Amino acid sequence: MNSGKRKLDQTDPKDVPKAVVNRLSLYLRELQHLLRNGKTTISSNQLGRLLGFSDAQVRKDLTCFGHFGHPGIGYRCEELVSAIRRILGTDRLWTVALLGVGNLGRALLGYKGFAAKGFRIVAAFDADPRKANTTIDGIRVYSLDSLDEIVRQHQIQLVMLTVPAAAAQAAADVVVAAGVSGIVNFAPVTLSLPEHVSLVGVDLATELEQISFSVANRINSR
Amino acid sequence: MNSGKRKLDQTDPKDVPKAVVNRLSLYLRELQHLLRNGKTTISSNQLGRLLGFSDAQVRKDLTCFGHFGHPGIGYRCEELVSAIRRILGTDRLWTVALLGVGNLGRALLGYKGFAAKGFRIVAAFDADPRKANTTIDGIRVYSLDSLDEIVRQHQIQLVMLTVPAAAAQAAADVVVAAGVSGIVNFAPVTLSLPEHVSLVGVDLATELEQISFSVANRINSR
Repeated sequence: MNSGKRKLDQTDPKDVPKAVVNRLSLYLRELQHLLRNGKTTISSNQLGRLLGFSDAQVRKDLTCFGHFGHPGIGYRCEELVSAIRRILGTDRLWTVALLGVGNLGRALLGYKGFAAKGFRIVAAFDADPRKANTTIDGIRVYSLDSLDEIVRQHQIQLVMLTVPAAAAQAAADVVVAAGVSGIVNFAPVTLSLPEHVSLVGVDLATELEQISFSVANRINSR
Repeated sequence: MNSGKRKLDQTDPKDVPKAVVNRLSLYLRELQHLLRNGKTTISSNQLGRLLGFSDAQVRKDLTCFGHFGHPGIGYRCEELVSAIRRILGTDRLWTVALLGVGNLGRALLGYKGFAAKGFRIVAAFDADPRKANTTIDGIRVYSLDSLDEIVRQHQIQLVMLTVPAAAAQAAADVVVAAGVSGIVNFAPVTLSLPEHVSLVGVDLATELEQISFSVANRINSR
């Protein structure tokens, strides 16, 4: 019986906690940094220490996706980078659009970290017609009317939503109707999306609540 | 024997998973929304359904911090809002500074969601002397030289770091030396901080990795 690419002892991706996927991103960033500095192998203990996690945590997280360690060697950095990129789906190119060209939208359009991870922002949209036909950091801004057409033309898969909270659900509905597969929502509001569209919510105030929780409860950074 | 405010059957805040604290922020936002719409009580089932979690998840998360449900009633919205704000430490005012007045910094200075949650941005700093003495969304920008003085003067507790990756560790060191308790780091780099300073890292590319993981593994938004 062959159930596809996933081995029987691995966790179904649907059941992997969000926090584990989050840590995969951190492992990936650290491993790429190590590789650039010429390091070829690393133990779970070293990797954990660099990021402030226990070695058990590192091993447990990675075990969700397969067996990557080599006895007496640890992890081969290059091999683990490839594996994590495959797991995160960043071993391919993603075409991304941004909707809402305010300060946050501009910040994201100018952010250099996306391209390196395989996310290519190919278009931006704004409801304000005065912003249409401008170009920000090399990315063309279109009016909302042309969203359908541009999404189809560029085969846009993901959308970053940086509109005001009050406009977010309507904007998401337009994006969903255009056939996008995933939305990263930066507006501080809970969106209701159809089941087949993936959603990640980013609430900037939430990050401050996380730090106030830590400080109020005197939880150290390590 | 009285061990303080925490009951014996509650989880030590240090052992509460980050994902639970994250969900507390979501519960809080939804409950405040419900309260504004005149709803006074809610069941774990209803609250979970609004956010896409199971009722068991909601109950388990809240149980980390005490007993909030009432038999036959569910949760009283106002009571639970107060409790979560107390847990998150947002039942008090926090004074916040921002370091790095680029596009992202400007976006955060203009973000209206912080004040409502008790985070008051009282000062901004930038290494570029041409930005000093300007005002953005009512917040004064200072040169880095005056950071120590301004932190003391305004008793600044938290700092949002929105500087380029290459400048982040040096900036964090300056902030730590000034006596700040917590740093929210938006630069895509792992910071090394002394144990007594809390750290939350926000990597904007990570959010895209989370959505590509979901789309690549066809995980629904619900």
